[in-house]
Amino acid sequence: MRLQARCQMTVEAADDCPLVAMLRPRSGEAQWLVRERYELHPWVPTTEYVDNYGNLCQRLTVPQGEMQIEVEIEVEAEEQIAVEPTAPATPIELLPTDTLLYLLQSRYCPSDKMEDQARERVGDAQPGYAQVEAIRSWIHQTLEYRYGVSDGSTDALDTLGHGAGVCRDFSHVGISLCRALRIPARMVVGYLHELDPMDMHAWFEAFVGDRWYTFDATQDRPRGGRIVVAYGRDAADVAFLSNYGPLEMKEMKVSVERLD
Amino acid sequence: MRLQARCQMTVEAADDCPLVAMLRPRSGEAQWLVRERYELHPWVPTTEYVDNYGNLCQRLTVPQGEMQIEVEIEVEAEEQIAVEPTAPATPIELLPTDTLLYLLQSRYCPSDKMEDQARERVGDAQPGYAQVEAIRSWIHQTLEYRYGVSDGSTDALDTLGHGAGVCRDFSHVGISLCRALRIPARMVVGYLHELDPMDMHAWFEAFVGDRWYTFDATQDRPRGGRIVVAYGRDAADVAFLSNYGPLEMKEMKVSVERLD
Amino acid sequence: MRLQARCQMTVEAADDCPLVAMLRPRSGEAQWLVRERYELHPWVPTTEYVDNYGNLCQRLTVPQGEMQIEVEIEVEAEEQIAVEPTAPATPIELLPTDTLLYLLQSRYCPSDKMEDQARERVGDAQPGYAQVEAIRSWIHQTLEYRYGVSDGSTDALDTLGHGAGVCRDFSHVGISLCRALRIPARMVVGYLHELDPMDMHAWFEAFVGDRWYTFDATQDRPRGGRIVVAYGRDAADVAFLSNYGPLEMKEMKVSVERLD
Amino acid sequence: MRLQARCQMTVEAADDCPLVAMLRPRSGEAQWLVRERYELHPWVPTTEYVDNYGNLCQRLTVPQGEMQIEVEIEVEAEEQIAVEPTAPATPIELLPTDTLLYLLQSRYCPSDKMEDQARERVGDAQPGYAQVEAIRSWIHQTLEYRYGVSDGSTDALDTLGHGAGVCRDFSHVGISLCRALRIPARMVVGYLHELDPMDMHAWFEAFVGDRWYTFDATQDRPRGGRIVVAYGRDAADVAFLSNYGPLEMKEMKVSVERLD
Repeated sequence: MRLQARCQMTVEAADDCPLVAMLRPRSGEAQWLVRERYELHPWVPTTEYVDNYGNLCQRLTVPQGEMQIEVEIEVEAEEQIAVEPTAPATPIELLPTDTLLYLLQSRYCPSDKMEDQARERVGDAQPGYAQVEAIRSWIHQTLEYRYGVSDGSTDALDTLGHGAGVCRDFSHVGISLCRALRIPARMVVGYLHELDPMDMHAWFEAFVGDRWYTFDATQDRPRGGRIVVAYGRDAADVAFLSNYGPLEMKEMKVSVERLD
Repeated sequence: MRLQARCQMTVEAADDCPLVAMLRPRSGEAQWLVRERYELHPWVPTTEYVDNYGNLCQRLTVPQGEMQIEVEIEVEAEEQIAVEPTAPATPIELLPTDTLLYLLQSRYCPSDKMEDQARERVGDAQPGYAQVEAIRSWIHQTLEYRYGVSDGSTDALDTLGHGAGVCRDFSHVGISLCRALRIPARMVVGYLHELDPMDMHAWFEAFVGDRWYTFDATQDRPRGGRIVVAYGRDAADVAFLSNYGPLEMKEMKVSVERLD
Repeated sequence: MRLQARCQMTVEAADDCPLVAMLRPRSGEAQWLVRERYELHPWVPTTEYVDNYGNLCQRLTVPQGEMQIEVEIEVEAEEQIAVEPTAPATPIELLPTDTLLYLLQSRYCPSDKMEDQARERVGDAQPGYAQVEAIRSWIHQTLEYRYGVSDGSTDALDTLGHGAGVCRDFSHVGISLCRALRIPARMVVGYLHELDPMDMHAWFEAFVGDRWYTFDATQDRPRGGRIVVAYGRDAADVAFLSNYGPLEMKEMKVSVERLD
Repeated sequence: MRLQARCQMTVEAADDCPLVAMLRPRSGEAQWLVRERYELHPWVPTTEYVDNYGNLCQRLTVPQGEMQIEVEIEVEAEEQIAVEPTAPATPIELLPTDTLLYLLQSRYCPSDKMEDQARERVGDAQPGYAQVEAIRSWIHQTLEYRYGVSDGSTDALDTLGHGAGVCRDFSHVGISLCRALRIPARMVVGYLHELDPMDMHAWFEAFVGDRWYTFDATQDRPRGGRIVVAYGRDAADVAFLSNYGPLEMKEMKVSVERLD
């Protein structure tokens, strides 16, 4: 399916503010970038680098005052995400080297403290996809989707304590429980068609069988129509904007439309 | 300056033909990608990877028959390229590690055979930028720009023998002579505003002082208005399309317009 | 100075246990690997990869039963570490791209929660080296070096709460406070000559001025005689042994001798 | 099998001479580094980096005068190399991304000029391993192993013209013919047990089926007992020593002994 995503932001800097942004999705297995447009007003020089996860990162300095950042992306995306209930857990010794990183505990995913909980959550589900789906489904049914409960310091244990959170928090819980079972899991940020209310979105992927599968604990069924912008261990790695100085987000509008 | 480049290709495959394409420029020190659009007709799934030089590469299979590939890119580019006649040669032991690769001889740049020639070309020019400019200027004045003399197997020595060639050949000669003097040099492919006749273009960069500088032996003066698509050791690394099976280029149209 | 480090471990696996080990230091700015020896008894096939931080990682499976792992390393190390009290904080926009990663909060270094504390700790020290030294010195004077207070789940905030910890905990506190001030900081594990009691060791590095500097909050003065084995964001990235199954460390002996 | 390789070199520099060396093998699928020792006399500071092929490279400056470089390596190596006559050619679209580089023509392997010859050499051998073995066997039977015919500028076409060469030249011919058939092929340098006369050695690997296989056109049968030091596209990438200034090799002694 052909999707067009738009994100318009107005930020205000009290002083010159260095920024690292993740605005440009890359083509990948499940998406092909057809068109992208970025506009910065006012214009400032920007450099780009590829981070350790393969994400394109833009470095710039927001000058004192207001800046508009507009992003418009057109992507051919998968209509359905892959679902494979019988995919087995991959033995650690057979995991591809580049997945090992996603077994480790991280800032918002203290999986080292959550082994018992993970085992309880999956019960007697078959090791692999079925376990991850049991985790995802449990989060969806148990946690309340609610803004204002969490902030930038909330980790997966905090969210379990609150019993509520947003997409980012649900993902951290899912990732932590997977890693506690020795299943590689990573954070994904991007866009989801028909997300309600529309916003930037976050979900997670788990490596079972011989590939990464998509899981989204905020949704009641497997849904395609996703545009991946960045991957990382958790939200610390994939901030849309990482500002190193005071920067106020004055306005942010997101839309995703189907074109075909 | 704001540039819009367009490239429209029609290729025809006698049979399904695997392809690696380099179609997507990246933002960098001297360019900021504002907008890009790609269209494949018919549509086929494509994956993307970053090669050893940092270029974005697209992998796809052209199905039997005709395929249209359209690329449209809008870039904020530098109006002037940096010119620094006094930049000295960088001592080998101080070269950044990622430039060392560009000292080595390569398929089309047999610099190991061209030391004497390089010394003769630069005469008593100061080691560094002045030497590279002496090389560039000599190529521009001595070699004839002519299509049909060279083909995909022509290396820098062949071109010196022919006394003629196209942008790719001029670049290979420039790169080879630089490397023979132990100055890192690399191939660049992309677009040049007001190139005449308009086409995809190739030039080279040399590392002197503490950065890469742009040199173009096809031009009579330093010119900005460049969009870099890919870097590599020589043309073998930066083919716009690398096809692994018969693929006929039926038509190719390139344009570069200034928007501001 | 020429150092020889030895580490002898006996591990016991209740069942076949996949393992990722970091046993092989690399030569770098401040150390040159002269000799290294590894022995596994019994012998098992091992593969090696380079992780995202540049560390050499060994993958193997410990068979059921006991295994001896012996490591012996001879390194030319710096007798003095660099000390540069006036090195200024590097403006974010000038930081090398590969240091940006070390500004981010991580599992054991929740720097996002520690900004106020960091400002209090450094008082009116000059931004840069002097701030990091103020942090290091405060940790050394304030926290008690004591085994048994911390475990594998203890983060920097926990350690501040306990008022005590070991080298790993001191490093996490130092790293967190640096990052909270927007100074890149990273964890180092390795060996230290004349460490008392002798053991594997951990310290941290901070990027100020134009390079990484070594800081060790367990010591009362700057000390050289260090062998770096691995770098990472925090202890999650640089475990000497990461086992994915029950693995008991039955014995571990470490020694570091000066040879010249 | 447990092997110990030694290489002792005496070099003499007329002036300070920057050097990039490849002295340290890495553990891999078929070898596990047990012990290594390097000595430089006189001692000079050295840095190390990982090149684009994953090789460990040492950078140093040889001071004016003589320097001894001693390398001693102990490796657990495979006694037999894998032989799989029925391994099929991998379709281009299924090749792992990191093998694509090894399809490209390079300085000493002008595969773009050798398609007809490659087809002739393999006759009706099955695409894949059988073709590579047909090439290897043809080289072994047809080319004469002789010192003094080739030098640092000799490429695969030159060697076919001479009808003779050394291990490096045989490898270049093998690699070129494989790539001309769209089989990824790469250069390997290292040590071979019982090589006669003993010296540093070079051979090649080809990717067929789902892995790299070892081929050595200098030998009359598949032989294990190999220690890989470095991989690359051809000899330009894997020089044991790349000196950037006059450097005379006064003496070089190589030995490989079996220890078990």
